[in-house]
Amino acid sequence: MNAPFAPWFQREGIALLTDLYELTMMAGYLREHRPDRRVSFEYFFRTLPPHNGFAIVAGLDSFLDYLEHLRFSDDDIAYLRTLDLFSEEFFDMLRAFRPSCTVRAMAEGTLAFPHEPIVQVEGTIFEAQLVESALLNMLNFQTLIATKAARICLAADGEPVLEFGLRRAHGPDGAISASRAAHIGGCTSTSNVLAGRVYGIPVSGTHAHSWVMSFESELEAFRAFARNYPERCVLLVDTYDTIESGVPNAIAVFKELREKGVNARAAIRLDSGDLAKLSKQAHRMITEAGLENPLIVASNDLEEDLIADLKRQGAKINAWGVGTRLVTSWDCPSFSGVYKLVAIANGDAWQPRIKISSNVEKATDPGRKQVVRHFDAAGRPVGDVLYDMDEDWPSSGTIVGRRRTQPHLESRLRDAVSAEPLLQIAFANGRRIAQTPPIHKIRDFAQTQIASLPEEFKRLRNPEIYRVMLSRRIGVQKDELLTRPDLS
Amino acid sequence: MNAPFAPWFQREGIALLTDLYELTMMAGYLREHRPDRRVSFEYFFRTLPPHNGFAIVAGLDSFLDYLEHLRFSDDDIAYLRTLDLFSEEFFDMLRAFRPSCTVRAMAEGTLAFPHEPIVQVEGTIFEAQLVESALLNMLNFQTLIATKAARICLAADGEPVLEFGLRRAHGPDGAISASRAAHIGGCTSTSNVLAGRVYGIPVSGTHAHSWVMSFESELEAFRAFARNYPERCVLLVDTYDTIESGVPNAIAVFKELREKGVNARAAIRLDSGDLAKLSKQAHRMITEAGLENPLIVASNDLEEDLIADLKRQGAKINAWGVGTRLVTSWDCPSFSGVYKLVAIANGDAWQPRIKISSNVEKATDPGRKQVVRHFDAAGRPVGDVLYDMDEDWPSSGTIVGRRRTQPHLESRLRDAVSAEPLLQIAFANGRRIAQTPPIHKIRDFAQTQIASLPEEFKRLRNPEIYRVMLSRRIGVQKDELLTRPDLS
Repeated sequence: MNAPFAPWFQREGIALLTDLYELTMMAGYLREHRPDRRVSFEYFFRTLPPHNGFAIVAGLDSFLDYLEHLRFSDDDIAYLRTLDLFSEEFFDMLRAFRPSCTVRAMAEGTLAFPHEPIVQVEGTIFEAQLVESALLNMLNFQTLIATKAARICLAADGEPVLEFGLRRAHGPDGAISASRAAHIGGCTSTSNVLAGRVYGIPVSGTHAHSWVMSFESELEAFRAFARNYPERCVLLVDTYDTIESGVPNAIAVFKELREKGVNARAAIRLDSGDLAKLSKQAHRMITEAGLENPLIVASNDLEEDLIADLKRQGAKINAWGVGTRLVTSWDCPSFSGVYKLVAIANGDAWQPRIKISSNVEKATDPGRKQVVRHFDAAGRPVGDVLYDMDEDWPSSGTIVGRRRTQPHLESRLRDAVSAEPLLQIAFANGRRIAQTPPIHKIRDFAQTQIASLPEEFKRLRNPEIYRVMLSRRIGVQKDELLTRPDLS
Repeated sequence: MNAPFAPWFQREGIALLTDLYELTMMAGYLREHRPDRRVSFEYFFRTLPPHNGFAIVAGLDSFLDYLEHLRFSDDDIAYLRTLDLFSEEFFDMLRAFRPSCTVRAMAEGTLAFPHEPIVQVEGTIFEAQLVESALLNMLNFQTLIATKAARICLAADGEPVLEFGLRRAHGPDGAISASRAAHIGGCTSTSNVLAGRVYGIPVSGTHAHSWVMSFESELEAFRAFARNYPERCVLLVDTYDTIESGVPNAIAVFKELREKGVNARAAIRLDSGDLAKLSKQAHRMITEAGLENPLIVASNDLEEDLIADLKRQGAKINAWGVGTRLVTSWDCPSFSGVYKLVAIANGDAWQPRIKISSNVEKATDPGRKQVVRHFDAAGRPVGDVLYDMDEDWPSSGTIVGRRRTQPHLESRLRDAVSAEPLLQIAFANGRRIAQTPPIHKIRDFAQTQIASLPEEFKRLRNPEIYRVMLSRRIGVQKDELLTRPDLS
């Protein structure tokens, strides 16, 4: 790769991608002589996007890239000096800074549920504070899009979902990261060539209305396209009039291809109008012309509800082009992940911390936690338990724990026969522990997990709420801190 | 600047930031022997985000950066070769490609209305097609955010609006571009240090809950913060209990500062709970303690409607921290801008093109157009007219034109005393025509224009619709093409 290319995606030179208050706090810790105090922060979310039963984790790779390259340049420091807020001692500390935190995280593609630590950052308070903004930025966005993509793919019910959101995404990186996350969530391909190159995602695309408009007639435009791409010819039929002109012209061109001995599947794209009605009409016209099993791609502000509704009406669509509503997560364009202090080191021991709220649901779960997923005999997840990082967990039987919001009360998971810890060390001593797998492996992993999740969590409306409980130890600790927060 | 830094923001190495279909069409034009045919495309939008009376243009600077650096590297071509879609002749053309189009555009910060060309790209069909995706990506996003910011600032009614959306924005660039656009739209500052550095936006920020939680007590945390930032001390008061603990502790600390001779304004931030009620309570407590005119910053999913409502209820808030709902444009996370072919060169003449739709509102306005804004004697805009790029326009009197959707019918603007063409050449012969002004100048320009716009266009609900009409020449042309599209 040539030099100017890499940094866009390797997240170099972005040490200042942080909220100013992280720096003011870091400088404050320095002056208060406690920047080296070790702390543990956890990234988690409290609520899923509306109507969602699960989330798909994505964005860790970007965060690890950022972390590996995290250095303050002289230019960064020169800029900070202009703010007239910081001391030279602080700048010396920034200049010498090298990431040394330990990051535990769920692998990308993992199913995640509310209140589960997804990423845990353990290190000096100086460092843990610094990386907050970038971590939230990258994980929140990509998790949002992977989750939305999974939902759209559930609605498409196994039919290909083609992502083409570049033109409506939030900037170049908003597009490229969205393409990556959408592929992890289940999309088949992207239209974004750069995302294809950088991440190895399959790319797809045909032609626009402007292709048709640039020729003397639609028929001539279709013929020219078929001449150029006989094997991969999908004709956009709605430039002038889908039924009167577009479909008949497409039929004529696919028949001409057959006559020339090209065995191309008749393929059209509908991008406007009533997609249910038009797809049925087009399907009938094409098959009646002797072209069996046409590929009918639909696009135009599609999302999961509309796809489900079109299917309910028997639309003859067998591939779904999804753009705006996917890459912006239109009905919920942000993910509510937060990053909270859960423990402070006190000598060799960790002292748990809680953030109280008048809403008990929002009180944090204190202490450094491991998320353990318990499975039934069929390999289906039955519930997750947040254990203290240092305690053992049972792998089978009835799992007894505490309720998150009423930690004085017991809660149980039944039928557990196996268990898996979800947080694994991803970064330590300034380096990634392992390379991120190729994206198709991450996608396969997500697909397998979604497949293992019982149907009740995958409804588009009112899905069942997945069980997440606290271990007894964490529950008792939370109960004490809730009643006596001054202990924390 | 050091090498790894620049490309993130100078948009280098992103020639492949395009939809695959742009490349398949380009290669098709090449094989059809017409890649050098000159065309004119226009970027415009059909609808504003809901309840908006105007948009603020932003994103041109990013697009021009991209265009200036637009080169295909050997690595780009090596990747494209793997797709097995293109010829070596096409790759030679990409390798030799240098931007040569002419771009006319509205300046960033300009008020724009539906159906007005905001950017016009004139060049070979090869090039005009290539840049479509990146243009749409950059202009749509930044215009969306500048427009949202303007709306939020209108609701804040002159009080500072602090943008801090980094943690919920769509990736690193989604955050940085949003910070830029938000500042253009009227925000006072950003929390994003990198955006501050790259674009010269003022940065602001204080501390998080974690600062408070990392000390033995809230009071100690506040004291430590005040010790470090006595002159810029804004205390976040809702970590434990705003009224019982946060505000009293903040009052104690500001009194201690006074006793030490530091004349700091008492300043707090409320980040949860009922902001109207809490701000009034806090204001009373602080002023009753003898600390006059406190700064009360509010945050927590604020947007224009909530700000207006809090003001209506007499909230004692005088600075507004806005994040998620601004940088994602929560209620409408995409801008509907499109890029359409409007004319094809035929020898020395331009042949206008139209895209018909069953919805007459969606039919494009054919031909290469200039947008002329007409003003009344008080300097207020009275309406815009789309003229043929090559026709003259009257600058005063009653302006007679045609209606956009019924171009056979006349329409008039009255009281015009001056006129200004809004599209200016921004790029030609591979170079920008002028450097982008410093961001505070762009912001001032937008502020001045918003101030000149009559109130009826600035309501938060049901604003008046600004007049945009066609010149007689464009109207007649559109009428002919609508009735005889085969002429186009």
